[in-house]
Amino acid sequence: MAGFNPLIESISPPPVPSVQAWARSYDGAKGPLIDLSQAVPGYPAHPHMLELLGKAASSRASTGYGPIEGEAVLRAAYAVHSAGVYHAALTAENVHITSGCNQAFICAVMAVAGAGDAVLMTNPYYFNHQTTLAMLGIGTKLVACSAERGFLPRVPDIADAITPEVKALALVSPNNPTGAVYPPALLDEIADLCQSRGIWLILDETYRDFLPDAEAQPHSLFSRPDWQDHIVSLYSFSKSFCIPGHRLGAITAGPQFVRQVAKIMDNLQICAPRAAQTAVAEAIPRLKSWREENRQEIMRRADALRAVVAGLAGWQLDAIGAYFAFIRHPHEGKSSAEVAQALAKNAGVSCIPGSYFGEGQEAYLRFAFANADVEGIRALGARLSSFSL
Amino acid sequence: MAGFNPLIESISPPPVPSVQAWARSYDGAKGPLIDLSQAVPGYPAHPHMLELLGKAASSRASTGYGPIEGEAVLRAAYAVHSAGVYHAALTAENVHITSGCNQAFICAVMAVAGAGDAVLMTNPYYFNHQTTLAMLGIGTKLVACSAERGFLPRVPDIADAITPEVKALALVSPNNPTGAVYPPALLDEIADLCQSRGIWLILDETYRDFLPDAEAQPHSLFSRPDWQDHIVSLYSFSKSFCIPGHRLGAITAGPQFVRQVAKIMDNLQICAPRAAQTAVAEAIPRLKSWREENRQEIMRRADALRAVVAGLAGWQLDAIGAYFAFIRHPHEGKSSAEVAQALAKNAGVSCIPGSYFGEGQEAYLRFAFANADVEGIRALGARLSSFSL
Ligand SMILES: Cc1ncc(COP(=O)(O)O)c(C=O)c1O
Ligand SMILES: Cc1ncc(COP(=O)(O)O)c(C=O)c1O
Repeated sequence: MAGFNPLIESISPPPVPSVQAWARSYDGAKGPLIDLSQAVPGYPAHPHMLELLGKAASSRASTGYGPIEGEAVLRAAYAVHSAGVYHAALTAENVHITSGCNQAFICAVMAVAGAGDAVLMTNPYYFNHQTTLAMLGIGTKLVACSAERGFLPRVPDIADAITPEVKALALVSPNNPTGAVYPPALLDEIADLCQSRGIWLILDETYRDFLPDAEAQPHSLFSRPDWQDHIVSLYSFSKSFCIPGHRLGAITAGPQFVRQVAKIMDNLQICAPRAAQTAVAEAIPRLKSWREENRQEIMRRADALRAVVAGLAGWQLDAIGAYFAFIRHPHEGKSSAEVAQALAKNAGVSCIPGSYFGEGQEAYLRFAFANADVEGIRALGARLSSFSL
Repeated sequence: MAGFNPLIESISPPPVPSVQAWARSYDGAKGPLIDLSQAVPGYPAHPHMLELLGKAASSRASTGYGPIEGEAVLRAAYAVHSAGVYHAALTAENVHITSGCNQAFICAVMAVAGAGDAVLMTNPYYFNHQTTLAMLGIGTKLVACSAERGFLPRVPDIADAITPEVKALALVSPNNPTGAVYPPALLDEIADLCQSRGIWLILDETYRDFLPDAEAQPHSLFSRPDWQDHIVSLYSFSKSFCIPGHRLGAITAGPQFVRQVAKIMDNLQICAPRAAQTAVAEAIPRLKSWREENRQEIMRRADALRAVVAGLAGWQLDAIGAYFAFIRHPHEGKSSAEVAQALAKNAGVSCIPGSYFGEGQEAYLRFAFANADVEGIRALGARLSSFSL
């Protein structure tokens, strides 16, 4: 048979479906499955959102090819919204719409690096960042983030890791898998370093709308002079609007960067699906207070999880943030995959093994706690306390 | 400023928007613009299609993440349909859904080739195939297709071009830009060659539903023993269902190939947008006769174009097929871009310069005649006959 690309053959099958497969052998004895694996909002999309989506999708105006960079209405609406979030002068020219934030990442990375180059990430990392780079033949270098420092990288460690083949540093804040929220001052210091070393800072802000403090600006990177020369920010409409199935994300960058991304997107899929773009453009201002309520609800879930884990012998919550908690399990000597698999099969709790996020993470499990409501999180406590291996 | 990936920087801006920009300086003096640039159906989507799209998009069931390989209903519906078209034993396991056929192509290509490998194409080629390979650092080798042989490649020329770095041959039938329809016997001979040389045949069949003979099987590649070891077919729902804005395509291949593509898609965008998938699954059987009427209508448009060009001094229709005609313009010595630009600005006729499809195509213009109705094609005749440079 004709051969496959070894870079593709050697990456593992997508992790989320394989974790979901474990849960299928759970017999329901402990009650319904508590699925804290893939990060999906545990509440439905707003009825207005569904209405807007239906209206746009049934319109002839959504059927033709659209502008590669995205619908003008969505680029503008997202720019206005972002300008408010970051108190910065962002315009539609700074925005490129993509089919979700994984696509935003691959576009951003391809714009700056090719096979043989390298991109710097943290350990632990978001697994799709790692597999995206691997399949493109782009090397990865890792900066360790330890529990003791709240899973934040140290700037000197980053500085040491920037070798000539490194074209970008990819960070995630609020972080997946740890939940760590990068302080604005740290991001600024990191941006200074990237700027001085001539590499891009690619910041994945998929969970930006779930920060503990609604009023706090996530960072001030867009207020830096010349930010467009070294900063790229990625966003997902999946979580905030509860519409991952409609596949929408955004890149915020300088117009020159947007022009490079347009060339990539033309080959990747011409344009993001149009109907959802029109719908979300309207939803951005309209569902503002609903999004704020969700943020508060997720804070309550985080509090519930903190309380639950505090009462569990041997389990330790080493980090918790916008959507995720990175939790130390008590089964030393067992791999995180063994523990996660047993949890799914025997306790009906689905979560992702730490090892999926990098080497040396065997002691951890990632819980996407935002998926479950407060009651579900309390039930999780009971399941974990009666779980043994 | 931090640098860009030279592979991206060096590809030209997307061709369709730049051609559309020329048309914006047309003053309307000759009547409304006749846009034969991007291949978009010149008739609207069926009202049932819009209804199905609206229903699916407003449903909560479409909001969550979906299966990477595609919705089970669409994989099954498309497999049943394809099994009929090709008289072959195709099942849902042979189908991977993508966001359009450009995405199907990049997925197929990445599955088999990486930077430093090469893919064989024809000259002329579909430009996004060329730019997709270029941006991935995959080399391209070209097999010439001349007007004298109906723009079909010669098998010995293909054989000569298969060097060790060539991992696949990418063909388009019915062809973009020429319209050439590859005879099943030629495709079989080419498949024999690919099989014996251990390379993949990737066949882009975006225009499959617009073949002159409704009953004729496009090819019998799926009836070859071991076809799954060397054949991959790509399809687009954009043209047949008039819904390019909803971004849906499909890969038909062996289950092993589908598994590799799933790994790529997970990084590229997790899954294709879900609502349109559910809607199209229903539309495949339901809009069968409507699609057949469209096919016949496009045949009438082809006939009209043949008649029009036959009456024009100096213009020569060198090839015409499912959606496109590749036409020799009378302005020898002028570049195809100069001619196309003047046509757009002065005659209100938008088409794509031959040079966009490969070297040595300066004598040609590509007309996406299926975009215009018979009356529009007659108006085109008047515009071309009064056009001078
Ligand atoms: C850090 C991070 N980036 C990107 C994504 C992908 O999001 P999208 O649904 O927008 O592709 C996710 C989804 O879980 C994520 O956690
Ligand atoms: C040969 C060919 N392949 C692929 C495509 C892309 O189609 P889609 O809209 O499905 O991405 C086109 C569109 O014009 C095409 O002509």
